[in-house]
Amino acid sequence: MLAEIITIGDEILIGQIVDTNSAWLGHELNEIGIRVVRITSVQDDPAAIREAFDNALRRAQLVLVTGGLGPTKDDLTKKTLADYFGCPLVRHRPTYEFLERWMESRGIAFNELNRAQALVPECCTVLPNRHGTAPGMWFEREGKVLVSMPGVPFEMKNMVTDTLIPMLREHFRLDAVVHRTAITYGLPESALALAIAPWEDALPGWLKLAYLPNPTCIRLRLSAYEVDRDEAEAEMERQFGKLQALIPECFLGFDDATVESATAALLKERGETLATAESCTGGAIAARFTAMPGASEYFAGGVVAYSNEVKTNLLGVRPETLTAHGAVSRETAEQMAEGVRRATGATYGVATTGIAGPTGGTEEKPVGTVWMAVAGPEGVFAEKRVFGKLRTQNIQRASTHAVNLLRIRLTRKGK
Amino acid sequence: MLAEIITIGDEILIGQIVDTNSAWLGHELNEIGIRVVRITSVQDDPAAIREAFDNALRRAQLVLVTGGLGPTKDDLTKKTLADYFGCPLVRHRPTYEFLERWMESRGIAFNELNRAQALVPECCTVLPNRHGTAPGMWFEREGKVLVSMPGVPFEMKNMVTDTLIPMLREHFRLDAVVHRTAITYGLPESALALAIAPWEDALPGWLKLAYLPNPTCIRLRLSAYEVDRDEAEAEMERQFGKLQALIPECFLGFDDATVESATAALLKERGETLATAESCTGGAIAARFTAMPGASEYFAGGVVAYSNEVKTNLLGVRPETLTAHGAVSRETAEQMAEGVRRATGATYGVATTGIAGPTGGTEEKPVGTVWMAVAGPEGVFAEKRVFGKLRTQNIQRASTHAVNLLRIRLTRKGK
Repeated sequence: MLAEIITIGDEILIGQIVDTNSAWLGHELNEIGIRVVRITSVQDDPAAIREAFDNALRRAQLVLVTGGLGPTKDDLTKKTLADYFGCPLVRHRPTYEFLERWMESRGIAFNELNRAQALVPECCTVLPNRHGTAPGMWFEREGKVLVSMPGVPFEMKNMVTDTLIPMLREHFRLDAVVHRTAITYGLPESALALAIAPWEDALPGWLKLAYLPNPTCIRLRLSAYEVDRDEAEAEMERQFGKLQALIPECFLGFDDATVESATAALLKERGETLATAESCTGGAIAARFTAMPGASEYFAGGVVAYSNEVKTNLLGVRPETLTAHGAVSRETAEQMAEGVRRATGATYGVATTGIAGPTGGTEEKPVGTVWMAVAGPEGVFAEKRVFGKLRTQNIQRASTHAVNLLRIRLTRKGK
Repeated sequence: MLAEIITIGDEILIGQIVDTNSAWLGHELNEIGIRVVRITSVQDDPAAIREAFDNALRRAQLVLVTGGLGPTKDDLTKKTLADYFGCPLVRHRPTYEFLERWMESRGIAFNELNRAQALVPECCTVLPNRHGTAPGMWFEREGKVLVSMPGVPFEMKNMVTDTLIPMLREHFRLDAVVHRTAITYGLPESALALAIAPWEDALPGWLKLAYLPNPTCIRLRLSAYEVDRDEAEAEMERQFGKLQALIPECFLGFDDATVESATAALLKERGETLATAESCTGGAIAARFTAMPGASEYFAGGVVAYSNEVKTNLLGVRPETLTAHGAVSRETAEQMAEGVRRATGATYGVATTGIAGPTGGTEEKPVGTVWMAVAGPEGVFAEKRVFGKLRTQNIQRASTHAVNLLRIRLTRKGK
């Protein structure tokens, strides 16, 4: 069962938005046994859209289209769909009534642009949009299906989860595709590849391994196509168990596991709490933890100590330490971690202080220099790293690395 | 001058990574007058890759390929390129020597996988990769150009900026494409469209307007193709001046302007500083400001006050306020903003307290309820919003909205 995704919009081609929808759709479709074999982004142009429809419907049984359904004048998709499937645009009463209520509840006047959003090609089945104004549309032709959805990510995602997935399950008979992804952190790709080569070489032939590196971890995905789901899942479980034994401190977990989520799991398991004292990472560590639901169980809070005054006043870093060693030093990092632990009453304090760049570096402490510390019941320790020249990357890497220091400590302590 | 982008890798189709490279490339190419008309993502499969090469080289003069060049066993691109352009893989001495030094400087053993990375098709021109191990490759056939680059974003980006853009400028004669994008915040798309309809209708025909909504703002892009650059830029400047006069408080600026960058610019202009007291946004506001270079000029720091203890101990929120009104209340938000201003000595304090979800809501205070406050020399004020049900979105919207309260105050005060 093969699918293609088409995204419509000059804004993707011109690089003003990143297409996050396709990756999300690819993942969701895989989960129900549909394999995405191609993603195409085309312009807001009827001829380009029609050509993309033709090609995709020739190759795949299912074509998902996102984007081009907004109320404004540059969106042409709906008209192109009506022409392509040869039927007129008609008012869809439930959508019209929903939009009327939607605007009313928000105190917004129901204008002519909104009224136009209730028009749909007569030959489609409407997928309701509970979170926005553009409905989805399901078309069929010669046994193949094309579905058009809005491009706003959370509108599209809710439509897929609530309505499209159940429709697809019913409409198509789906083969089993099984994926399982383990997340590793701490070894670069080539070192990881060598470390796990014996494991990789001993994998059964029907399990396909892929390395998926990204800036914060390397993911290892096992895939199996057209197999018995239970048997494949059991075999993957066994294989990943062997992998974990091979690289225990690098193994974060499965699927969406991150250094933070693995750390959060360890803290919850132990009934312990965390607080952060961030200088160069500027709140990024706190934001990563609090982005996860349920963070209040183990996350007490933190201080973003950008200025020296904040380091002194809120974290109790000694002014003479700042004078003698500087803000970017082992001593400052350790006092920050201890200070936030004391101020919040958390079990552990994690601190960062460094030079994120692009300016502020010296010969002795170049841009990218970061001291990271962990304070806990057993005392405090710190580690220095010199990351790169790029600010965003330095913040990201220092955040991950600092949390990983705590994670490794928690891992070694056992339960 | 038309280009297409091809990204290679199962990991995009299966949804395990988001393709951020293509948007970045689209933007950079536009800047030098190359128009991206299609982006295609294909599998790590020689037949699919060859088909994508054939189609793209038929339609466009330039094809940029990213991904599929890593050292591990699932990467087939380089072999496919050698076959496609009909020449053998040979060792590229400068790359080999660079890799040897690279590994040595990192204390990593130079292994056989790295040695294979110094092999390139004999018929290509190598683009050096100063930030990673996979070199780029430039191929020519019948006047058309295909360039293959690594998929790791910062390696690819540095290669494009340092080497590819100068090569493209030299190789192709480029037409002028001019874009200018204004950023608005505060009006939903349909209301914005009506508010600016008279302006839009009066635009000269050769200026094309596009609405580019995203979760935090709506961008309005003017484009002109094959025109005199200076003339087009002057006209866009005039037109955007009129737009700003029409919607003064919604107009954030140009290009990458955000609510934060507009606020930062106002603070720097006035020599004032900011501190944050975040509960439900969990450090996201601080992280957004500190992600921008030079934040230390105006950003003092902040407190992530996730627990009530931190609100009391570090921000001086009165325990009786928490008891009487709860943590999510006007009174708490105001005391948080005042408290962080006092603790840090900043000119302004911005605070958020709310229920990000998915749990923790009540009938009176449903998930999505957020109080936001701004404290400054003129006193403190607070505003409540009820956002949606989704945690990530609530954090994002509350962060933007809270900062926008400060921005509007600064805008109204004038210089």
